[in-house]
Amino acid sequence: MTFQGATSLNIALIHHPVVNKRTEIIGSAVTNLDIHDIARMARTYGVENYFITTPYNDQHLLVEELLEHWDNGHGATYNPARKEALSIVSLCSSVDEVIAKLTSQYGKRPLLITTSAHKQSNTILYDDLRKIIDNREPVLLLFGTAHGLAPEVMKDADGTLPPISGRTDYNHLSVRSAASVIVDRLLGSREG
Amino acid sequence: MTFQGATSLNIALIHHPVVNKRTEIIGSAVTNLDIHDIARMARTYGVENYFITTPYNDQHLLVEELLEHWDNGHGATYNPARKEALSIVSLCSSVDEVIAKLTSQYGKRPLLITTSAHKQSNTILYDDLRKIIDNREPVLLLFGTAHGLAPEVMKDADGTLPPISGRTDYNHLSVRSAASVIVDRLLGSREG
Repeated sequence: MTFQGATSLNIALIHHPVVNKRTEIIGSAVTNLDIHDIARMARTYGVENYFITTPYNDQHLLVEELLEHWDNGHGATYNPARKEALSIVSLCSSVDEVIAKLTSQYGKRPLLITTSAHKQSNTILYDDLRKIIDNREPVLLLFGTAHGLAPEVMKDADGTLPPISGRTDYNHLSVRSAASVIVDRLLGSREG
Repeated sequence: MTFQGATSLNIALIHHPVVNKRTEIIGSAVTNLDIHDIARMARTYGVENYFITTPYNDQHLLVEELLEHWDNGHGATYNPARKEALSIVSLCSSVDEVIAKLTSQYGKRPLLITTSAHKQSNTILYDDLRKIIDNREPVLLLFGTAHGLAPEVMKDADGTLPPISGRTDYNHLSVRSAASVIVDRLLGSREG
């Protein structure tokens, strides 16, 4: 699984439990583009594992088929760079399962960090988390689909990153944009 | 066109002339997702205008139909936040046309800045461009689709931002991820 430049940062995209715009708990559908865009970004920055997390069996079959296409199917020869990006992707059914896998891989439980478009009481600053990763402490960073992570996921976190703020009172980033910005703040080069 | 928090940064997504993986000059197709994801990001950060640039008439018709759906059609009532994001989007046929529009809007020619996955000789640092925008100087930032902006576009630029580097030798960000990261570096809050 490890590759040149891999860091101790791991990410998971959560499809259940998340909230809808009325803050009801829902499960969302996996989208092809969330897998591709976030895998390409994660592999570029050195995220070690990218977990697609959903409890639904039909969604597992769909993601497995997609990954197989790029790992051994036509995609692998058509676009080897995409194969490389998707090689860090794996499927899990729950956050607990992701934590168990990482605990086994690193020999210790990862720090659990959540993201949110709203400020939380357990804030951890970007610079502080960056230092933790630089020290090679295992970190699991969770991103929510739909309107964000459910409270039951947020409450278990060791910390939550501050919301991304632009210069306006409008804040409707796609999870693909938010994940790119957050990982750049944690792992991007600071030159220039 | 102006809104609360609007900056003097403008962006354009170029569909021609760009290069393919063999560095031949091509025109690419407009994608729905490039419009939505980048508009949501741009509107969040305070980008004043987002230009979809393509010389092809059929692509203009397609984008106009999409924008109309979100401006006056079912989309406008279904998701008003999306309407707001897309309100900063407009169509142009060429970079020259974008420059002419902005020159008319600001009463002066915008600084023309390009982006690339490869280091260029006319580098302008993120922090320096950030200061220029903070001084409300009009800036036009170009993003290429496919494998990037054609040399004939790059050569006219007043400067090129450094490539985004992660911690690996792999670098295959989607233009949606790259645009998000670059605009965050130029306009994002520096707290935390």
